[in-house]
Amino acid sequence: MRRTRAIFIFILIPFISIGQQSDSAIIKKISDEILIHGQAYENLRFLCKKVGARLSGSPQAAKAVRETARMLKEAGADTVYLQPCMVTHWVRGEKEQGVIQWGTQKKALHVCALGMSVGTPASGIRAGIIEVRNFEELYALGAEKVKGKIVFFNYPMRPELISGGYRDAVVYRGRGPVEAAKLGAVAIMIRSVTHALDNNPHTGATQYDSSVKKIPAIACSTLDAEWLHQLLQKEKGVQLYMKMNCQLLPDAHSFNVIGEIRGSEQPEEIITVGGHLDSWDLAEGAHDDGTGCMQAIEVIRTLKALGLQPKRTIRAVMFMNEENGLGGGRAYAAAAKKNNEQQIFACESDEGGFGIKTLGINGTPEQEAYVRKWLPLFSSFGVYKMPDGGGGADIGPLRSMGTMMSSVNPESQLYFNHHHAPNDVFEAVDKRELELGAIGMTSIAWLVSKYGIPPATGNN
Amino acid sequence: MRRTRAIFIFILIPFISIGQQSDSAIIKKISDEILIHGQAYENLRFLCKKVGARLSGSPQAAKAVRETARMLKEAGADTVYLQPCMVTHWVRGEKEQGVIQWGTQKKALHVCALGMSVGTPASGIRAGIIEVRNFEELYALGAEKVKGKIVFFNYPMRPELISGGYRDAVVYRGRGPVEAAKLGAVAIMIRSVTHALDNNPHTGATQYDSSVKKIPAIACSTLDAEWLHQLLQKEKGVQLYMKMNCQLLPDAHSFNVIGEIRGSEQPEEIITVGGHLDSWDLAEGAHDDGTGCMQAIEVIRTLKALGLQPKRTIRAVMFMNEENGLGGGRAYAAAAKKNNEQQIFACESDEGGFGIKTLGINGTPEQEAYVRKWLPLFSSFGVYKMPDGGGGADIGPLRSMGTMMSSVNPESQLYFNHHHAPNDVFEAVDKRELELGAIGMTSIAWLVSKYGIPPATGNN
Repeated sequence: MRRTRAIFIFILIPFISIGQQSDSAIIKKISDEILIHGQAYENLRFLCKKVGARLSGSPQAAKAVRETARMLKEAGADTVYLQPCMVTHWVRGEKEQGVIQWGTQKKALHVCALGMSVGTPASGIRAGIIEVRNFEELYALGAEKVKGKIVFFNYPMRPELISGGYRDAVVYRGRGPVEAAKLGAVAIMIRSVTHALDNNPHTGATQYDSSVKKIPAIACSTLDAEWLHQLLQKEKGVQLYMKMNCQLLPDAHSFNVIGEIRGSEQPEEIITVGGHLDSWDLAEGAHDDGTGCMQAIEVIRTLKALGLQPKRTIRAVMFMNEENGLGGGRAYAAAAKKNNEQQIFACESDEGGFGIKTLGINGTPEQEAYVRKWLPLFSSFGVYKMPDGGGGADIGPLRSMGTMMSSVNPESQLYFNHHHAPNDVFEAVDKRELELGAIGMTSIAWLVSKYGIPPATGNN
Repeated sequence: MRRTRAIFIFILIPFISIGQQSDSAIIKKISDEILIHGQAYENLRFLCKKVGARLSGSPQAAKAVRETARMLKEAGADTVYLQPCMVTHWVRGEKEQGVIQWGTQKKALHVCALGMSVGTPASGIRAGIIEVRNFEELYALGAEKVKGKIVFFNYPMRPELISGGYRDAVVYRGRGPVEAAKLGAVAIMIRSVTHALDNNPHTGATQYDSSVKKIPAIACSTLDAEWLHQLLQKEKGVQLYMKMNCQLLPDAHSFNVIGEIRGSEQPEEIITVGGHLDSWDLAEGAHDDGTGCMQAIEVIRTLKALGLQPKRTIRAVMFMNEENGLGGGRAYAAAAKKNNEQQIFACESDEGGFGIKTLGINGTPEQEAYVRKWLPLFSSFGVYKMPDGGGGADIGPLRSMGTMMSSVNPESQLYFNHHHAPNDVFEAVDKRELELGAIGMTSIAWLVSKYGIPPATGNN
């Protein structure tokens, strides 16, 4: 297709260039530059402490757009521009309440509304609470026992899943309101999706189905879930009072923030690196995903600081609205299609700013084999594997263009301790771990800019 | 030699046993058991919070011996015993003072004596301070400028070293007093050996040479080092007042704590797994090295809980006195030699309880190739490499017996933020990361117990 003419070039270019700086020497320069002069950490401090939580549509999200555009200019990007997109605009409103009542006693839980949830009536909702571990237990109860109740999904993240525990558990956050409402429940509460046993409630988007009544959805902390489970073993007639005045407003105008270094030889071939700029509204969005954005800016800064001119265009993109709509990711791909861009490669960092462990890749077998030849270069900074399956929510819409996908994958055990929770703050990020991810992202962007990617052929 | 008769057996044993549980199924069971029912984290909480700092010779070290013996019994070890050893007995005494004075002003620094340092006279030492970045700068100053002064070694850990930064920087802690005393210095202060910029002073052993006067040695926090560097640019006649009453007492009696599962077929072949039980006296010794000890106990608990009977003997050893003498490690090796033990394999975890990244191995090329065949089994819990160079200080003395060495290597960027400092506390350890290391240690112990290790032949 559009890149077939390049196929012979790939075969002829030697892996290590003779007569110029070797790839390993350049990777070492990149690594040194980031570890000695890195700006990602101080940029992150600014984003977390001077901008803060930046949910799509909020004034802080608009401020984050301005400030990261400034950072990209300071990093030396040839061009910095804002790409318009429409974003979901959900607002939490006042701090939610969730109070357990039994007999004459009551206890306030550590709760937060799930993102996209509808609110309760102004006076709140009070109803009996019914605990289930999973959907099977819910269906077994049936409409008779569920009708008029608040369903408490107390599904712990499975500890034995070293990865994938989040995907396994998050279905109750996503489909809980619909499945419970089908049986007549008036609201739901989920156990926060985290391995950590603490008092932090974790938010995140829930979903509704237009054919089913929209009921309010809230999350409680894991310690509260454990406590409530015990209470429900011994007390009858336990009720939950919930009050939330969150609202979904009309979609709002916002922007992706883009900075690029134009390629010197094949500028039409574009390498996208990025993270998402929006965050949930309860914390600073440090690991999710301030770190990914700051790493992408660091790619630009590092290449400019070292005077490394890419042959192909490298673009750092701060995507807007990943958390509750993907408006930014969709707008970016739509513009790329409209402009007939050759989006050859995209790399996202949205798994937290912990030390990079692997570089996930997702392309044709030929593309993957081509990129895996570079793995020895990555071992210099501790990356020993390029597993199948790279990508990210924001770059996902590019997939239909045949773009090869990649992701910076850190050791993930700690991520869900902070994910969507009030403790996702700057102080939870280590400078050097953040920088190791930036080294990974810069290295893959540089290598792709130098050598290109074999075109995707056939079905991809 | 003593294991040559086994050589044919290694060749004949298939990698995956047919007709019994596959290795991958057993590794999965080990992983699940530790992640679902693991006790290492709660044991660590006890060690940190109920025992606390446990420098060799201290009452807390004696308590740690009793308590870990109890833990090993509760874990189900066939035999638990204490192995006598002599340990260094250094005591810090009262909280140290380090006060900078210039003109009429003064500022107290965050300091701690280096381990093994001599004290100051009871009235302290007051002298002019002279800053050097390294030994070369010290030597260039010469005796004339150094005599009567306190030398301030302000050598930052090199940020560009992804690993090895500690080894590079710690020479000033080790040799600083000797090199400075040769030129007539009256004391030294080092910048703490850490990448972190904070107010925690980091201790650790220093060394003296019997031919050179022993002068007191102290560490200041990195922020204080940065501040003092600035002060010294603009002020003349800056003095440091130091007061320390640490002492080296006669060697004391102590113990290694050992728990073992006797092998069912070749009990004479011994696999040692362990960490060191002593810690510095300023914190809880969580990452250094409570985590290694708790992982070793978890090896025993897990195999017993799963009913996995090893063919060869597996021993969990809590070594005493790693920090300032290695009395435990030497006593263990001496006893092994005296008893003609076949110490075929040893694995130490003493790099912090962060998520395991690699399993370091150190043996003959044949041994290493043999063990590396198991790497695919390790990838199930995220270990993608078995680099050359495993080992640890405590198991090091076994090397002369031809024992193959191994180490649980975590992602190391955070370790030196806590190492030998007041923030090496239980709260700095993540339950799941700790458990992943225990999975690695249990897996390698199990596989070696099942398949043995090819004997070391020739020079090793």
